[in-house]
Amino acid sequence: MGVNLQTESQLFIGIDGGGSKCRATIFCPQRGVIGTGVAGRANPLHGLEQTFESILASTQLAISDAKLNPDAVSTLVAGLGLAGVNVPRLYDLVNQWQHPFAKMYLTTDLHTACIGAHEGNDGAVIITGTGSCGYAHVGNQNLLIGGHGFALGDKGSGAWLGQQAAEHVLLNLDGFAEDTQLTQPLLAHFNVTDAMGLVENLAGQSSSTYAQLARIVLQQAEQGDAVAISIVKQGAKYISNMARKLFALQPTRFSMIGGLAEPLAVWLDKDVVARVELAISPPEIGAILFARQEFAAQQHNREVS
Amino acid sequence: MGVNLQTESQLFIGIDGGGSKCRATIFCPQRGVIGTGVAGRANPLHGLEQTFESILASTQLAISDAKLNPDAVSTLVAGLGLAGVNVPRLYDLVNQWQHPFAKMYLTTDLHTACIGAHEGNDGAVIITGTGSCGYAHVGNQNLLIGGHGFALGDKGSGAWLGQQAAEHVLLNLDGFAEDTQLTQPLLAHFNVTDAMGLVENLAGQSSSTYAQLARIVLQQAEQGDAVAISIVKQGAKYISNMARKLFALQPTRFSMIGGLAEPLAVWLDKDVVARVELAISPPEIGAILFARQEFAAQQHNREVS
Repeated sequence: MGVNLQTESQLFIGIDGGGSKCRATIFCPQRGVIGTGVAGRANPLHGLEQTFESILASTQLAISDAKLNPDAVSTLVAGLGLAGVNVPRLYDLVNQWQHPFAKMYLTTDLHTACIGAHEGNDGAVIITGTGSCGYAHVGNQNLLIGGHGFALGDKGSGAWLGQQAAEHVLLNLDGFAEDTQLTQPLLAHFNVTDAMGLVENLAGQSSSTYAQLARIVLQQAEQGDAVAISIVKQGAKYISNMARKLFALQPTRFSMIGGLAEPLAVWLDKDVVARVELAISPPEIGAILFARQEFAAQQHNREVS
Repeated sequence: MGVNLQTESQLFIGIDGGGSKCRATIFCPQRGVIGTGVAGRANPLHGLEQTFESILASTQLAISDAKLNPDAVSTLVAGLGLAGVNVPRLYDLVNQWQHPFAKMYLTTDLHTACIGAHEGNDGAVIITGTGSCGYAHVGNQNLLIGGHGFALGDKGSGAWLGQQAAEHVLLNLDGFAEDTQLTQPLLAHFNVTDAMGLVENLAGQSSSTYAQLARIVLQQAEQGDAVAISIVKQGAKYISNMARKLFALQPTRFSMIGGLAEPLAVWLDKDVVARVELAISPPEIGAILFARQEFAAQQHNREVS
């Protein structure tokens, strides 16, 4: 039997959806985080139905983790930070969703990541995980850079590193490009022995499949492979340049977030690394802060109107 | 009412399936080509069900064009040249298909293109359409180069040209890359005005969507845009190098096939262009020749065994 916490206070759920995972976190103002859940990818650019499924799955896992009844979903005030909704059409489609929450406030994953990193204050963030993008919020100014998605950009991201490595290895196996220590670990990763084996495992696959190869590229770069170093340096250069564009808005804080933030740091320009500060909270907590801000503003507007 | 041509002779159907289209051609040994049909893409790498649907759709269109009954499909001997079946697992899956034909002989689109181009004799071909790849058949030697598919390679192909252009335009709109005359026609192609409009139309799309942008890239290169010229030259260099690898097998004939073969020719190295000879027949006629060869060999084997 679930415990009904609704009598104590309004519960919030923060959801962070991206190219590989969807994280949900339930927050009680009195008790803090009471439950979390993780499900599959939730990027509307790559499928609206899958996005909704992942949001619902991670939500129910978080509800279960919090020992709430499944139908408690209808009492939650949700903050959603999703990849892809920087595209206005997708923002509208997600916003029109017949969601199960009491209220739903939608914004980009970059916005909630920035809110989380700087606890709701002005600042800038770069996310380098499956994809890559930058965002700054300073005063009335917002700046979004990159985030175009796999096969269109996202340089320096996990998917981009993996794609660059696979492309080079295939060119090499055809005799068109220099030898590299990347070849054997890439083949071994998929348990195949030749180019066709790689093609079979990568063709038509999503960004998350390519992003799984990023660690191999970073490892081989650390071990001195010239091709891997060239790929990682090219990606890191883009991220450094992106950071400088964000710095132009003079944010008081700057954080780097995502699975590649830490391993990529050694490859970034020194002036950029010098400005990196720890993210205070993760994006899903940013999504909760966003939901609380929006909810409070709406309550306030209702009272004054 | 359909005319039953079965009494006259065995009918053959040649099918050429690739990343954008599937072409079917019905051939009668006495009367030549009696019907053709075109349907959507048929590349098993990007979906087996869609491949089968496109084969069946193009077949029925060809049957209708030939004024045969729809059930005449069960009397046809089919030759299939498909993209993607250079991957052994996909070859097996297509070969195990419960197809509707009297007999079905399967090979790669490269093989049937080569058979068509050189009327069944030894030779080499490069296909530059939605994708790019090279193939040579000389004596007992076969050489396949490239053909790794979109986002993994296929340099110089339509999808690659389009992807490179879109990536550059997006980097430029973010302030990371030089200005280019590609920007306006790319935005106009999708009837959008900014980066997010491009992303919305391209993210998660198949190679054929990117390939639609290739003409714009070639046009801007002809008109002197430095970025477009750089992209086209890089693609053409790869195609020229691919040709030289095929020439190493000393093929007696060499042809270039596909929608980009002609516009790309002016950008290829002179020694490569000098060797290009017209393809005698298109790939779907190659598929018919392949089916006739295989069918005759099987009949012969049956008689001698």
